[in-house]
Amino acid sequence: MGVEAILRTRPRPPTVDPAVLAACIDECVACAAFCTVCADACLAEDDVGAMVRCVRRCLDCVDACTDAGRILGRQTDPDPTTQSTALAACLAACRASAEECERHADHHEHCRLCAEQCRRCERACDALVAAMDSGESEA
Amino acid sequence: MGVEAILRTRPRPPTVDPAVLAACIDECVACAAFCTVCADACLAEDDVGAMVRCVRRCLDCVDACTDAGRILGRQTDPDPTTQSTALAACLAACRASAEECERHADHHEHCRLCAEQCRRCERACDALVAAMDSGESEA
Amino acid sequence: MGVEAILRTRPRPPTVDPAVLAACIDECVACAAFCTVCADACLAEDDVGAMVRCVRRCLDCVDACTDAGRILGRQTDPDPTTQSTALAACLAACRASAEECERHADHHEHCRLCAEQCRRCERACDALVAAMDSGESEA
Amino acid sequence: MGVEAILRTRPRPPTVDPAVLAACIDECVACAAFCTVCADACLAEDDVGAMVRCVRRCLDCVDACTDAGRILGRQTDPDPTTQSTALAACLAACRASAEECERHADHHEHCRLCAEQCRRCERACDALVAAMDSGESEA
Repeated sequence: MGVEAILRTRPRPPTVDPAVLAACIDECVACAAFCTVCADACLAEDDVGAMVRCVRRCLDCVDACTDAGRILGRQTDPDPTTQSTALAACLAACRASAEECERHADHHEHCRLCAEQCRRCERACDALVAAMDSGESEA
Repeated sequence: MGVEAILRTRPRPPTVDPAVLAACIDECVACAAFCTVCADACLAEDDVGAMVRCVRRCLDCVDACTDAGRILGRQTDPDPTTQSTALAACLAACRASAEECERHADHHEHCRLCAEQCRRCERACDALVAAMDSGESEA
Repeated sequence: MGVEAILRTRPRPPTVDPAVLAACIDECVACAAFCTVCADACLAEDDVGAMVRCVRRCLDCVDACTDAGRILGRQTDPDPTTQSTALAACLAACRASAEECERHADHHEHCRLCAEQCRRCERACDALVAAMDSGESEA
Repeated sequence: MGVEAILRTRPRPPTVDPAVLAACIDECVACAAFCTVCADACLAEDDVGAMVRCVRRCLDCVDACTDAGRILGRQTDPDPTTQSTALAACLAACRASAEECERHADHHEHCRLCAEQCRRCERACDALVAAMDSGESEA
């Protein structure tokens, strides 16, 4: 169940389209969960030595997505630079994690599923960046 | 999209029923997101002075749910006490947050939605506690 | 620099001895940082296959210590059960991480240093549990 | 106790000066703890309505500092963009939090102490940005 409904009950509306914002937060929290599971599954693989980079990129993605999901979930008196840099950091981590997981997608199904989730999160972040930029140019 | 599919692709199966485990992790990450939004929405209310306890309980719930979601998402060589105490801490935080949000559910819709999510997470944690206890008695 | 000074500037005093509380929070945040570095250093070792459990226990300890440090750092209108269960979860994770790191202390210096930090955090948590119990019996 | 000693025991040295890196990680984790306490202390003030922005900025700073401290603490096979964007997000959050806390420093001692910590973290992040840029130009 996503955060759009609760975001719409705020006493003041979010500074961007609530549907785009909610989609990004939902993908961030899902991505943090997927990357937690993928990093852990990589550790359980027989070829763990070949999965070190994947573990590492997934762990970063967990942290960056958790951070962005929280900071974007706060819409009371936000600092625009804090919001946009958290989003940029999340995008970077999702891309790095997706790229590495895609390299292992053929032999580890958890990497294939995780890469897909990282790309979904990347697209949702991109859409929110566009919505924020559009909001600024209108303002 | 939930974590059950990716949990099922682990090289070794989780120590408990993957459906029950996945449901708990999914509710934990959703609950962390809902409580982030509710704490922030409370801060934006005119009666913020009356919402201080609610902000506080929601912030705790964010942290406890994030922690439990991560620790339960790791099924490689888990320490049973670490798993069960993280789950107990999550349960306690969900209850405290639900109780306080329910007190404000009539006048703040975000509190009503957040209380419902905290109760869903509480039930999912209870179900996982039962599944873990059952697994131990079988072992 | 520790949190005791800032804890003492709260408008209302903490519910327990500020020195004991501050020491516990300080050890929690330090332990989260040490375990982050140790998990990552284990991943860089040639014998990474032998370090999987250590990585895993350290990652749990990062999350449990971060969670406890935050929840204990909040002293406004705390829920006693949320505080005590977060502390219990942190204790369990510190013990599990210390035990595993101690097994590798002879051949990996980061494990030796991390085990020492986990034990410091464990002792600080134990002292806070005692202070909280004592506070309850006085109340 | 800081992370420099444990960082120096990694099997491979960090990609930047360990003293500069360790100082940044240490300030990030301290800043997360200070901002947790300050946000909570603000909630306990009689003039909580005037402190809403400060609570909010401090909560963001907690998350951004925690994220940066973890991502920078991992030096195994790092993704440079993930590292630099996490650092930029931390810098932005520290500045926003410091600016708001400084506005309340005269009447709330926790804000004065928190602002000082945010500025220390900001300077440590700036120094790490400079060290990373210098490392790249040498490479």
